[in-house]
Amino acid sequence: MKSAEKISSDGNNQEPDVEKMVCGIMNGNRQMLARAITLVESQNPKHEKKAHEILDRCLEKKTSSIRIGITGSPGVGKSTFIEALGLEIINSGHRLAVLAIDPSSMQSKGSILGDKARMEKLATKKEAYIRPSASSGYLGGTSPKTHETILLCEAAGYDVIIVETVGVGQSEILVDSMTDFTLLLMLPGSGDELQGIKRGIMEIADAIAVTKTDGEQSVLAAISKAECDAALRMLPSKYPFWKREVFLTSAITATGIREVWQNINEFFAVMQKKELLRKKREQQLKNLFSAIVEDMLKKKFYLDQEVGSSLPITEQLVVTGKISPFSGASSLINIFRHPDTLR
Amino acid sequence: MKSAEKISSDGNNQEPDVEKMVCGIMNGNRQMLARAITLVESQNPKHEKKAHEILDRCLEKKTSSIRIGITGSPGVGKSTFIEALGLEIINSGHRLAVLAIDPSSMQSKGSILGDKARMEKLATKKEAYIRPSASSGYLGGTSPKTHETILLCEAAGYDVIIVETVGVGQSEILVDSMTDFTLLLMLPGSGDELQGIKRGIMEIADAIAVTKTDGEQSVLAAISKAECDAALRMLPSKYPFWKREVFLTSAITATGIREVWQNINEFFAVMQKKELLRKKREQQLKNLFSAIVEDMLKKKFYLDQEVGSSLPITEQLVVTGKISPFSGASSLINIFRHPDTLR
Repeated sequence: MKSAEKISSDGNNQEPDVEKMVCGIMNGNRQMLARAITLVESQNPKHEKKAHEILDRCLEKKTSSIRIGITGSPGVGKSTFIEALGLEIINSGHRLAVLAIDPSSMQSKGSILGDKARMEKLATKKEAYIRPSASSGYLGGTSPKTHETILLCEAAGYDVIIVETVGVGQSEILVDSMTDFTLLLMLPGSGDELQGIKRGIMEIADAIAVTKTDGEQSVLAAISKAECDAALRMLPSKYPFWKREVFLTSAITATGIREVWQNINEFFAVMQKKELLRKKREQQLKNLFSAIVEDMLKKKFYLDQEVGSSLPITEQLVVTGKISPFSGASSLINIFRHPDTLR
Repeated sequence: MKSAEKISSDGNNQEPDVEKMVCGIMNGNRQMLARAITLVESQNPKHEKKAHEILDRCLEKKTSSIRIGITGSPGVGKSTFIEALGLEIINSGHRLAVLAIDPSSMQSKGSILGDKARMEKLATKKEAYIRPSASSGYLGGTSPKTHETILLCEAAGYDVIIVETVGVGQSEILVDSMTDFTLLLMLPGSGDELQGIKRGIMEIADAIAVTKTDGEQSVLAAISKAECDAALRMLPSKYPFWKREVFLTSAITATGIREVWQNINEFFAVMQKKELLRKKREQQLKNLFSAIVEDMLKKKFYLDQEVGSSLPITEQLVVTGKISPFSGASSLINIFRHPDTLR
C-alpha cells in the first residue's frame, strides 16, 4: 500500500508506530520483529526511545524460551551444526530464533551475509528466524542489546533461542549471563582442549559437542571425547546436579544432533523441577538491568550539553600534559553532576 | 630493614608512600614497579587514589617507548616467539617489558604461573620485565588499566613494551588502541586465514609472523605465507606508506626473528619521519582519557550513597515487573545527578 507510506522529516520511509509494531511482533510478523531489532541496535537516541517503549510492552507479556548459547572457534562448523540442530528443534514442534553475534571485524562490520548464506535450509523454514548481528563492538562491555533482542524474539513467539558467538573470551561469558545453557563446539583433535583459552570457555559450558566426527575423523574424535571428558572432570561443576556430557556429532551424517537436543531438554526439565529456571531468569533480568543502567549513564553523560562543551577543552589540556587525566575526568564528572556550579 | 616496616591499620605491611614509589620506579626498581602495577590493578578505591598519584607523576616525565601488540590463537606459540624476539630486542641494547593479558578464564583467573614459566630465559634477564596480568575481565570494556601499566613501565625506563593478548576479537582491538605496532602470529596451515575471526585481526595487523616453520612444517609454511600475502592484499591498508609483510619464523632455529625486529624498527623510523608517532601518542592519550572518564563515572555512580540505597529497591521493582528496566535506570541516574530531589 504505497499511499499509506509517509516520508518522515529525515527523508526515510516513516516507521510504523509503537502500537503497530508491538502488535505485529506479538502476532509473529517477521518484518515487524526485524524492524524492532534494528531499532534496538540503533545508536540514534530517537530510535532508542522507541525501542524502549516496544521492549516495555514486550516485557509486560512475560514470555519465555529455552535460551541456548552456542560457541566455538572459527572453523569448528558452527553454522552447519546450528542448522542441523535447528531443524531438529523445529521438527520437534518449536519455533526457533538464531541470533548470530560476530565480534570479529570492527572495520568491515563482520561477515553478515556469509552467516545468513551458510544456514540456507534453516533460513527457508517459517518456524525459524535467523538474525545475524553486526555487533559493531558492543559485545565487549555491558551493552544490553543482545539481551533485548532475545526479549523481542520471545515476544514474537520463538520458544527456543540460540545465540551463536564467534571467538573466545569476553563475548561467551557475556552471552552466558543471558542464556540458560551453553554448548561448546570443538573440532576433533584440535589438541588445545586444556589450553588456557579453551579452559575459560569450558568453565561455562553445560555440554560439549565434538563436530565433524564423520569419515576419517572418527578415531581422532574418540580421543577428543576422552580428552574433553578428562578436562571436564578437572573443572569445578557449574551445577552439582548436572553432569556435563561430551557428544560426538556430525551435521553431514546427522549423528549426535538429536542426543544434544535431548540433553538440552533434560537440563531444562531438571532446572524447572528444581525451580532454578525462575531464579536464573531473575538473575538474568538483574544483569540486563545493570547493563541498561551503565549504558544509559554513559549516554546521558556524553549527551549532556555542559559535558559536551567542556570535553574538547579538557581533552586538550590532558593531551598537552597541562592537567592529569584523572583530574580532567573528575572535573567532567563534577560538571555532569552539578551543571550549575561550573568549575 | 625490619624496623622501618610499619603495620597498617588493616594488618598488612605498610606500602611505601607515593614519593618513595615514584622514585623507585624511575630508578628502575622492579619491586616498586611491581607494587605500583598491583595498585593500578586493584579495585580498592584507596589503592586507586594512590595509583593515580603515582601515574600523574609518571606522566609528567613524558617517557615513551616502542609499543608492540602481539596476538594469535592459543597454541600458536606466543610465549616461545616472544621469548625469542625479546632476547633479540635485549641484545640490540633495549630494555623490554612484556605484559601478558589473559582474558580466557574468568573463574580460575587465568594461567598466570603458566605464562611466567614459559618465558624462562627471558625472565632471568635483568633488562627484561615480565608481568602476566590476571585481567579479571576488565579488558572487555574500556578499562584503562593495561594502558596505565604501559605508562608505569615506560617511566621505569623500559623502552620497548610488548603487550601479549590471547584470544581473538575485543582484546586485540583494545590493545591496538594503546600500542603502535600489531604483530599477528599464525600457525602454518591453520587454514583459517580468510575466516571471519582472523580477518578481523588481520585488519589491525601491521605484520604477520608464521610460527613453527621448522622441520616438516616448511612446505605448509610457504603455502601459509602465500595465503596470508593474498589476504593482506584484499584488506584495506592501515597506512598508505606501510606495506604489511609476512615472515616465516621459528623460535627453535631462530629463523626470521631478527627480520621481524628489523621490520618493527623500520615501521617506527617511518612513523617518526612522518611525525605520525607524536599524533599516535596523542590519540592514545585521548583514548586513555576517555577510558578513565567512563571508568570513573561508573565507579562514582556505584559508590554514591543515594544510588547505593536506592539500587536494591529499584532492582527488585524491575525484576518483579513493577517498573520497566528503562524507567528504573532513568530514576537511578536522576538520583545520582540530583541527590537533593529524591523521587
